[in-house]
Amino acid sequence: YGKNTIKFLRLHKEGKKHCVKEVEVCTHLRLTSAQEYLEGNNSLVIPTDTIKNIVLVLAKKNGIPTLEQFAIDICNHFMTTFCQVVYVKTYVQEVPWQRLHENGVPHIHSFICVPDGIRFCEAEQCRNGPLIVFAGIKDLKLMKTTQSGFEGFYKNEHTTLPERHDRILCGELFCKWSYGECKDFDFDCVWNKIRECILEAFSGPPDCGQYSPSYQKTVNDIQMLVLSKVPQVQVIEVVLNNTFYNVLDMKNLGLTNDKEVLIPVEAPYGSCACTLGRK
Amino acid sequence: YGKNTIKFLRLHKEGKKHCVKEVEVCTHLRLTSAQEYLEGNNSLVIPTDTIKNIVLVLAKKNGIPTLEQFAIDICNHFMTTFCQVVYVKTYVQEVPWQRLHENGVPHIHSFICVPDGIRFCEAEQCRNGPLIVFAGIKDLKLMKTTQSGFEGFYKNEHTTLPERHDRILCGELFCKWSYGECKDFDFDCVWNKIRECILEAFSGPPDCGQYSPSYQKTVNDIQMLVLSKVPQVQVIEVVLNNTFYNVLDMKNLGLTNDKEVLIPVEAPYGSCACTLGRK
Amino acid sequence: YGKNTIKFLRLHKEGKKHCVKEVEVCTHLRLTSAQEYLEGNNSLVIPTDTIKNIVLVLAKKNGIPTLEQFAIDICNHFMTTFCQVVYVKTYVQEVPWQRLHENGVPHIHSFICVPDGIRFCEAEQCRNGPLIVFAGIKDLKLMKTTQSGFEGFYKNEHTTLPERHDRILCGELFCKWSYGECKDFDFDCVWNKIRECILEAFSGPPDCGQYSPSYQKTVNDIQMLVLSKVPQVQVIEVVLNNTFYNVLDMKNLGLTNDKEVLIPVEAPYGSCACTLGRK
Amino acid sequence: YGKNTIKFLRLHKEGKKHCVKEVEVCTHLRLTSAQEYLEGNNSLVIPTDTIKNIVLVLAKKNGIPTLEQFAIDICNHFMTTFCQVVYVKTYVQEVPWQRLHENGVPHIHSFICVPDGIRFCEAEQCRNGPLIVFAGIKDLKLMKTTQSGFEGFYKNEHTTLPERHDRILCGELFCKWSYGECKDFDFDCVWNKIRECILEAFSGPPDCGQYSPSYQKTVNDIQMLVLSKVPQVQVIEVVLNNTFYNVLDMKNLGLTNDKEVLIPVEAPYGSCACTLGRK
Repeated sequence: YGKNTIKFLRLHKEGKKHCVKEVEVCTHLRLTSAQEYLEGNNSLVIPTDTIKNIVLVLAKKNGIPTLEQFAIDICNHFMTTFCQVVYVKTYVQEVPWQRLHENGVPHIHSFICVPDGIRFCEAEQCRNGPLIVFAGIKDLKLMKTTQSGFEGFYKNEHTTLPERHDRILCGELFCKWSYGECKDFDFDCVWNKIRECILEAFSGPPDCGQYSPSYQKTVNDIQMLVLSKVPQVQVIEVVLNNTFYNVLDMKNLGLTNDKEVLIPVEAPYGSCACTLGRK
Repeated sequence: YGKNTIKFLRLHKEGKKHCVKEVEVCTHLRLTSAQEYLEGNNSLVIPTDTIKNIVLVLAKKNGIPTLEQFAIDICNHFMTTFCQVVYVKTYVQEVPWQRLHENGVPHIHSFICVPDGIRFCEAEQCRNGPLIVFAGIKDLKLMKTTQSGFEGFYKNEHTTLPERHDRILCGELFCKWSYGECKDFDFDCVWNKIRECILEAFSGPPDCGQYSPSYQKTVNDIQMLVLSKVPQVQVIEVVLNNTFYNVLDMKNLGLTNDKEVLIPVEAPYGSCACTLGRK
Repeated sequence: YGKNTIKFLRLHKEGKKHCVKEVEVCTHLRLTSAQEYLEGNNSLVIPTDTIKNIVLVLAKKNGIPTLEQFAIDICNHFMTTFCQVVYVKTYVQEVPWQRLHENGVPHIHSFICVPDGIRFCEAEQCRNGPLIVFAGIKDLKLMKTTQSGFEGFYKNEHTTLPERHDRILCGELFCKWSYGECKDFDFDCVWNKIRECILEAFSGPPDCGQYSPSYQKTVNDIQMLVLSKVPQVQVIEVVLNNTFYNVLDMKNLGLTNDKEVLIPVEAPYGSCACTLGRK
Repeated sequence: YGKNTIKFLRLHKEGKKHCVKEVEVCTHLRLTSAQEYLEGNNSLVIPTDTIKNIVLVLAKKNGIPTLEQFAIDICNHFMTTFCQVVYVKTYVQEVPWQRLHENGVPHIHSFICVPDGIRFCEAEQCRNGPLIVFAGIKDLKLMKTTQSGFEGFYKNEHTTLPERHDRILCGELFCKWSYGECKDFDFDCVWNKIRECILEAFSGPPDCGQYSPSYQKTVNDIQMLVLSKVPQVQVIEVVLNNTFYNVLDMKNLGLTNDKEVLIPVEAPYGSCACTLGRK
């Protein structure tokens, strides 16, 4: 297969207001042929440069109403235009530009980059198969300073970790879900609802939180809440890249440390992941 | 000289509410002696490990009321404790954790990382000299989609740039200012006020913006507004690392492109900087 | 599943000569249970910290004779020690320390980091299945300044790329191959032989090179040469991340440019990949 | 001031042999005027795009005989062409392409990227001042597995570091030296000689090494050797960014660890630097 990444900005106006979408689009193609590999016969190869042009032409003609719609448009274009394509996958990721506000007033043409979780989507299709739409969020860094522990785990002669019932839970979340073949709903609205579910399941109620007995359980809580609240989601994958914080032992400095000063531990660096679907 | 970087988390509670500061602290020391370099005599050398311990002990004992106060405390400690130190500089940078909100309600112990500009500060002192405090913001990415041009520049046989009166202005801002010896005011409040000045000077009024004839003029506008609105600032340095966007020529694809599709230009990559003080 | 990364240095002496291996080891485990996800019951969970300890204990006891043998040892340990493990995969990557030489004389204990392609390996096993060994090289950057072209490709109304018969071929190679269940040979020697095959297939004969009609064909040439010269390799995957260089048009600067000054093109960024096995 | 970075490839042939230099060039200019900042009057501003064109035209016309000569040419061009320029500094950095060899035979047109220390240089000039040439090496990672210690350092109540007489010495070197106004010698040859001095002073004799009592002393040894062996060097700055390795305590795992397994310590991260000139 071949793939290709292109980054660009799409501007449009709504009345006097400027709207901006900066995206990175990566398109994978797989062809029917193998002759370009075996014989150096390029007659069916679609150059990177042509793929780039097609993505830009579609952006110019259709705009980017939502990331998902744009990815669908690209997949459709390749499947219907090139009979040598047997598989196409399009990944679209957004640069998180947000409109600036001055004293609550939205600015007509100024933006600030706020990378608190990056939105992305994917559309994928095999020839004669359905077009499947995925969406997701990545690089979302969250922390709970209490209501997290890790106890009752498996122990043997290589175990040195103490049991803890009040640790820091901190990590970088990657969530990706499938909408299946659904494609007639408001992708922006659903995405925002899912993001809220993720934050809610991670944190628990604002006044007291909810105890997490492990990274694994928190991953599962996120999946369960999204599946229960958002019927459009068919399958959801969550990866949590953990950052551990150790309470620093300050005894040799003559001080007690009641979970006041903690040091992030670079290694071992852990990660837990799970994919969950509907029955 | 020697320097040393340490990253840690400082937690404290205000009633039931948890508060978190994660900081990276870098301390530079210069000693009176040269014997450690010339002769390998280490008797005056303060090990990296000791510097780390001192920073952590101060964080444990005093907390981190503000980044600036913490940097001042560290400088003071080294100057008063070690007579072999002739110069100390402490840089403190914050991991931008923000309290999570659920439907407008602040969460008691959950946080999200929102890196829309990183706050930092510096305290610096030579033996027998004053302690000077700096503060700043970095990695602040801003964009204006109109009200920016570049015309009337110097031209010769190597000039190929066309004049433009409606381009994108986009860049990453670094701003650093000096409070001089002032240290008895609310550092958090002043910092937030300066951040607002920067955004306002970059953007102009929310309903119409303000025309920028060059990156240089925008840099100067930021400096002038901060100096006029915030009397605590003595000197302000601004660096703007530009990202250029080219309107894609789509003629060979049979399309006109009225500043709708633009491509970021990786190179040449430009930057303009200026330092401005009060008379 | 869960995964875990740990980085460490393993020293040993051969007579007076010091030998060093710095490795990054990442271990994935999948358990029989789901109760840790669903119920927060951790009784079968093997903590990250325990995984780290096991890797370090094995390094201490067995050393790291080869990356591959070390990965095999780790897999075996997890499979035989923990009956709740249904799948284990261990990835080992090397920091490319090379012994320093002074006027051709190898230094007894000094090393320089030379990252001209990073060696890695993987061992993988499902319970009741065979242990499969993979090895590879990544981040290997190569360039040919001639003997490369791209012609006769598919064209339509979105094609703007001209045909070229003398371009730069430059890219970053990732190669990963499977040794199947073989494990009784000299992994270091075979790895070095494969690296030479890759360089030879990319470059062609030193006095004249060999024409490459496409990235795809070069990828295939590498695979074919490795499969023909190294019988231990069962399957080989090659990914070539291309960097394109454009001959700069200097006509508007009054100069001709006969492939003397070229600019790397950041986007579109392309990649081609292929996996090839024996019949 | 303004600055500008451009990356490109310069090819030339020596007979049938292809030669390649890929460089990143960064040019800083300071102008006599302030009107572009204060008034938005751009009449003296030299656009980034023009600076880029000049660098490329000089590369096309003169080639890049050495990095240093190219930097000198650029400085001279700006100083003699633009009377509004009061200061120019040009930094040139090389992508470390090395000719491929097959069984000892150099390849006519194939190259591999070997980043074991990056070569750079700088030429700097104020109007009416001399043109000063600097050169250097950066990102040079070296390690000694013995013959390094740290003892007899300053101690107080915050000291927890034990004395060590057999530790790992590992770090990333940055060296930058000035040739003053000299410019009529073989820059490539001198640079290679200095690189050898750095490696020799870091390592000591190949059969036994030389004891380093501190990072500081090693920095000084490097400077002294370069100044004594290379008369063209006027001043030399060395920065050593240390990586610490801790011998892992394996007692709680029932094992002794005689400096066999070590863990890199991410923080505190230390650095020591010194600038030394001739009397």
